[in-house]
Amino acid sequence: MPPARGDHEARRADVSEAVWRVLAAKGLGGLTLRAVAAEMDASTGLLTHYFPTKRALVRHALVVAEERTSAFARRTPEAEGLASLRAALLDVLPLTPGGAAMNRVWVSSWDASLADPELRANELARLERWRGRLRAHVVSARERGELPEETDADEVTASAAAFTHGLVVHALFDPDRFPPERQTALLDGFLRGITG
Amino acid sequence: MPPARGDHEARRADVSEAVWRVLAAKGLGGLTLRAVAAEMDASTGLLTHYFPTKRALVRHALVVAEERTSAFARRTPEAEGLASLRAALLDVLPLTPGGAAMNRVWVSSWDASLADPELRANELARLERWRGRLRAHVVSARERGELPEETDADEVTASAAAFTHGLVVHALFDPDRFPPERQTALLDGFLRGITG
Repeated sequence: MPPARGDHEARRADVSEAVWRVLAAKGLGGLTLRAVAAEMDASTGLLTHYFPTKRALVRHALVVAEERTSAFARRTPEAEGLASLRAALLDVLPLTPGGAAMNRVWVSSWDASLADPELRANELARLERWRGRLRAHVVSARERGELPEETDADEVTASAAAFTHGLVVHALFDPDRFPPERQTALLDGFLRGITG
Repeated sequence: MPPARGDHEARRADVSEAVWRVLAAKGLGGLTLRAVAAEMDASTGLLTHYFPTKRALVRHALVVAEERTSAFARRTPEAEGLASLRAALLDVLPLTPGGAAMNRVWVSSWDASLADPELRANELARLERWRGRLRAHVVSARERGELPEETDADEVTASAAAFTHGLVVHALFDPDRFPPERQTALLDGFLRGITG
C-alpha cells in the first residue's frame, strides 16, 4: 500500500534534510543513494522510490541547495548603495560554518553542472540572477555618488561577483589563511579599488 | 607475460593522454575507468592494471592535469612588475579553447579535492604556490613604483588570485557574456583598482 499523502510529504522533507546533510559533509561528488539512505537510517530501496536515477537525485539536491541558500541569505537591513553592495557580498562569503557548508555545496556542484547541459543552464541562470541583484546595488551606489559617475555598472558588477566567488574558493580550501576577518578586509580592499 | 618496460612506458603515456581527454570533455566527475578505456579502445581490465581503485585514477588524473598546466603556461617574455603580474593572470584565464579545457578540469576537481584530505592538501599547496609566484610580481611592481608604496603584497596578491579564479568560473559557465576581450578588460579594470 503506498503511504498516505501526509506521510509522503513528511518523508519527502526528511529526504531533503538527509540530502542536505550529505551534500554539506561530502559535496555533490559524495552524494549517493546509499549515503542518503544511511543518513536517514533507511533502505536504498526506499530512496529509489523518490529518485529512480542518480541524475534525479542530483537535480533534487540542487533544488534543496537553492532553497537553503535563499533561506540563508541575511536579511540585510535597509542599507542602500555601497553599503548594500558590501552586505550582499559579505552574505556570500564563508564567514560562518553555515556559510562554509553552503559554499562548499555550490563549489562542489560545478563539476556536475559543467558536465550536464540542463544543470549548466540552471547554474548560468543562477549566476546571472545574482549579478542582477548586485547590479542594482552598484547602480544605487553610483546614483548616491559613492562610485564615480563614469562607473560601468555591468563591469563593476561582474568584477565584484568574480572577486567574491574566487575568494569563496580560496577560503574554502584555506580557512586558516582566510579567516572571516581577512575575507572581510580583502572585500573592503576590493571595494576601495572600485570607488576610484 | 607482463609487457616489456618500453611498452609499459608507452602505454602509460597513452593512458595519460586518454585520461586528459576524458577530463577535458567530462570533468573529474565524468572520469571513470570505463570512459578512459573507451577513449583508448581498450578493456577496463587493462585499465585496472594501472588503476586498481577509482581513487588511484583520480590521483593520476590530477598529476596529469598539473603536468599539462605547467606545460601550458605561456612563456611570458621578460616582463617585470605590473606587466608580469598582468601576463601571469592572463595566463590563467580561459581565453582560448585550450585554456578553457584546462580550467574546466581544475574547477571540476574542486568537488573531489574538498572531499579528500590528501587531494585537498595538494590543491591548497598548489594555490599557495601560485600565489607565491604572483606575489613576486606584486613586489616587483611595488619596487618599480607601479603600485603604491604602502601596498600590502599579501593582500593584493590574495585579491588578484581570488578575482582571477572567480572570473575563470564565471567565464566557464557563461562564455557568451565573458568572451576573451571582456575577460581581459575586466582584468585591466581590476589592475587599475589596485594601482590606487
